[in-house]
Amino acid sequence: MVELSRAGLHVSVSDPVATSMNFLNEIAGRYPDAISLAAGRPYDGFYSVEDIVRYQRSYVDHLRNGGLAEERVRGLLLQYGRTNGQLGDLIARMLEIDEDIVVPSESVMVTAGCQEAMIIALRALCAGPDDVVLAVEPCYVGLTGAARILGVDVVPVPEAAGGLDPDAVAEVARRVRAAGKRPRALYLVPNFSNPSGISLSTAIRRRLLEVAGEQDLLLLEDDPYGLFGLDDEPRPALKSLDTDGRVIYLGSFAKSCFPGARVGFLVADQTVVGDEGGRTLLADEMSAIKSMLTVNTSPISQAVIGGVLVESGCSMRTANQNKLSFYRNNLRTMLAALEEHFPQPERGMRGVRWNVPTGGFFAVVDVPFAADEKLLELSAEQFGVLWTPMSFFYSDGGDHALRLSCSYLAAERIAEGVRRLSRLVAEHA
Amino acid sequence: MVELSRAGLHVSVSDPVATSMNFLNEIAGRYPDAISLAAGRPYDGFYSVEDIVRYQRSYVDHLRNGGLAEERVRGLLLQYGRTNGQLGDLIARMLEIDEDIVVPSESVMVTAGCQEAMIIALRALCAGPDDVVLAVEPCYVGLTGAARILGVDVVPVPEAAGGLDPDAVAEVARRVRAAGKRPRALYLVPNFSNPSGISLSTAIRRRLLEVAGEQDLLLLEDDPYGLFGLDDEPRPALKSLDTDGRVIYLGSFAKSCFPGARVGFLVADQTVVGDEGGRTLLADEMSAIKSMLTVNTSPISQAVIGGVLVESGCSMRTANQNKLSFYRNNLRTMLAALEEHFPQPERGMRGVRWNVPTGGFFAVVDVPFAADEKLLELSAEQFGVLWTPMSFFYSDGGDHALRLSCSYLAAERIAEGVRRLSRLVAEHA
Repeated sequence: MVELSRAGLHVSVSDPVATSMNFLNEIAGRYPDAISLAAGRPYDGFYSVEDIVRYQRSYVDHLRNGGLAEERVRGLLLQYGRTNGQLGDLIARMLEIDEDIVVPSESVMVTAGCQEAMIIALRALCAGPDDVVLAVEPCYVGLTGAARILGVDVVPVPEAAGGLDPDAVAEVARRVRAAGKRPRALYLVPNFSNPSGISLSTAIRRRLLEVAGEQDLLLLEDDPYGLFGLDDEPRPALKSLDTDGRVIYLGSFAKSCFPGARVGFLVADQTVVGDEGGRTLLADEMSAIKSMLTVNTSPISQAVIGGVLVESGCSMRTANQNKLSFYRNNLRTMLAALEEHFPQPERGMRGVRWNVPTGGFFAVVDVPFAADEKLLELSAEQFGVLWTPMSFFYSDGGDHALRLSCSYLAAERIAEGVRRLSRLVAEHA
Repeated sequence: MVELSRAGLHVSVSDPVATSMNFLNEIAGRYPDAISLAAGRPYDGFYSVEDIVRYQRSYVDHLRNGGLAEERVRGLLLQYGRTNGQLGDLIARMLEIDEDIVVPSESVMVTAGCQEAMIIALRALCAGPDDVVLAVEPCYVGLTGAARILGVDVVPVPEAAGGLDPDAVAEVARRVRAAGKRPRALYLVPNFSNPSGISLSTAIRRRLLEVAGEQDLLLLEDDPYGLFGLDDEPRPALKSLDTDGRVIYLGSFAKSCFPGARVGFLVADQTVVGDEGGRTLLADEMSAIKSMLTVNTSPISQAVIGGVLVESGCSMRTANQNKLSFYRNNLRTMLAALEEHFPQPERGMRGVRWNVPTGGFFAVVDVPFAADEKLLELSAEQFGVLWTPMSFFYSDGGDHALRLSCSYLAAERIAEGVRRLSRLVAEHA
């Protein structure tokens, strides 16, 4: 029988990114009774299986009411379809209503989840071995993974406590250029970032756009959590402030609808100029890549998301009011439990501290010991609680911190999870 | 406003593969009344929109009847899911029933269409710049496109009139190796190939497996058309003859179910040996790649295909009996129309000839003039018929031939299309 060498595979399960994610799943499988403050998945009590059919029906009705013949409706759902998808109009309307982002519907590409949107954006922009992408670090592993598939180098820009420092971006871009590389884009999650939970101020957002212009960078704005703020402060999307076409917007429906649809999107309204001066839309150029990756996004899945959009009048903010109060309560519960179970002055003496995100699913706790895979295993076995080592999100570093998630569980389980974590910390500090 | 240079994009719409496919769509859009013998998509009269809901329901019932709690069913459909998908058992059973392929269900990975299966297989096997893939030429553009995304070189192995010559494979593999490259795999469509329509004899299949062993190649067996033979001759899947683990099987439901589901799969039951001697399944190693491309295949789409499998007792041969007679009739009609509208002795004098496939969707017509994009445009405008230049499927060559498809239209339209083609040929020969 053939035996292949793992060393001869491009990416294997022993790849650091894959290992990180597998380790979490594996350990969650081995300790099913442990409370998981590791899983960043959304709470799944908001929907039932029956909703799938209802949403599909709403979308089909929308098509029929729009005057499409039955044959055309059938073709849209069952045949090969337009590479960039069929939800461009609805998504463009949603972006205008919810985010004040005004873009032509042709600049929207529907993707097989936001993961595919990331890989398409990276593939389009990074054409040669010298093209690199900058990314805020700690960084979402999906971006690192997409770059890994393509062999694109990711250059980290360290995140400060108040969020990304635009001057640090400029500094890294200059350094990269001095080393003979071409920095093409900066990846960031401006709202309640994964993993750090940090949001950027409006002033930083505006300054980032200026730096992007000065450094000739595009910004890859990933915003899966923006709907879930603790307060109603405006957090303008970079894309809504972008008068210069610097931002490629990456969108997800995994948290606002549900992950099972595997529908995401990107907005690429930049102009591309060909050799002979012809002008096209970047989204249209990217369709060549999309067709070579997955042909087009499942129209059956698009129909489900289309139904959610139709039923909500194209406002995910409206559609997510019940989720918003659930997630707000969860985050407040987690932060309150941290205060309760890590009281002062012990906390300060032990060197335990955490950030206080203003929304989203995550917070980061600094601990006075290495929060590594070995400790995670012990935490699962002896204390019944799971968390994510922050080192999973660093190319190098993050050893003394852990990420807590509050999205998947009901509030009382979160509080109990934090209590268990405090026992682990008390024994190891 | 930012302007990007097309030359700075990795793949653009001006890429040869993208151009080929776009040109066909574009010209079909401009001449909607032209009969398309170009489109290789399946006939879409077999299903209605209502079937989607029924299939999903059948799959959900299957899960519930299997004893899964409602919460678990909901999670399977609406949450993030297992990277390699949830249809492994059903697909493994289908492969055994329909193809005599016996593999563990863990070796099955469900993908976002067969296109993603191709890119995952290429990405796993081609790890460094010297790793190349061989492919039968003329070659399906999906494979060329997948390689293009990854920057993997494709080395053509010319197809002979009787199909692929295994000795030619060995010869190309040796030449590639002599040039310092590493041939990792050979891509082929053994049944009614796209674009050539050619099938391989059982003897050639067996010899190919021997050559794969001698040359240390894997075989990427792509079989979207195998169900649609004109006769009931056995055409054993390479994977069913594969006692040595040489074959990675690439599967599609686009023709046997419908394209809109965007569900395909691969079978990778090879053993992978790690640095410390640990042994894993190639499909499990590949899950790292899948997670970085699309996370997992839409469970909502998987549910539709799952329903088709459940309803048919996991036999696509059974489920496709009505399609089989439709496609058989279409291919016979096309071949008969060629005989009728290109009579001897003119045909021979003009140098017109075609191959006579024993099944599938395609045949190739040699013509005594360049069958290029310019002629295609003229053919659409003045003769009302579309076909595909064979040059689209060659790295170099194929200029005097065209591919005819007979899958999408009703038989009478196909006959009329061939009649129109004969007028074009008469004027240009």
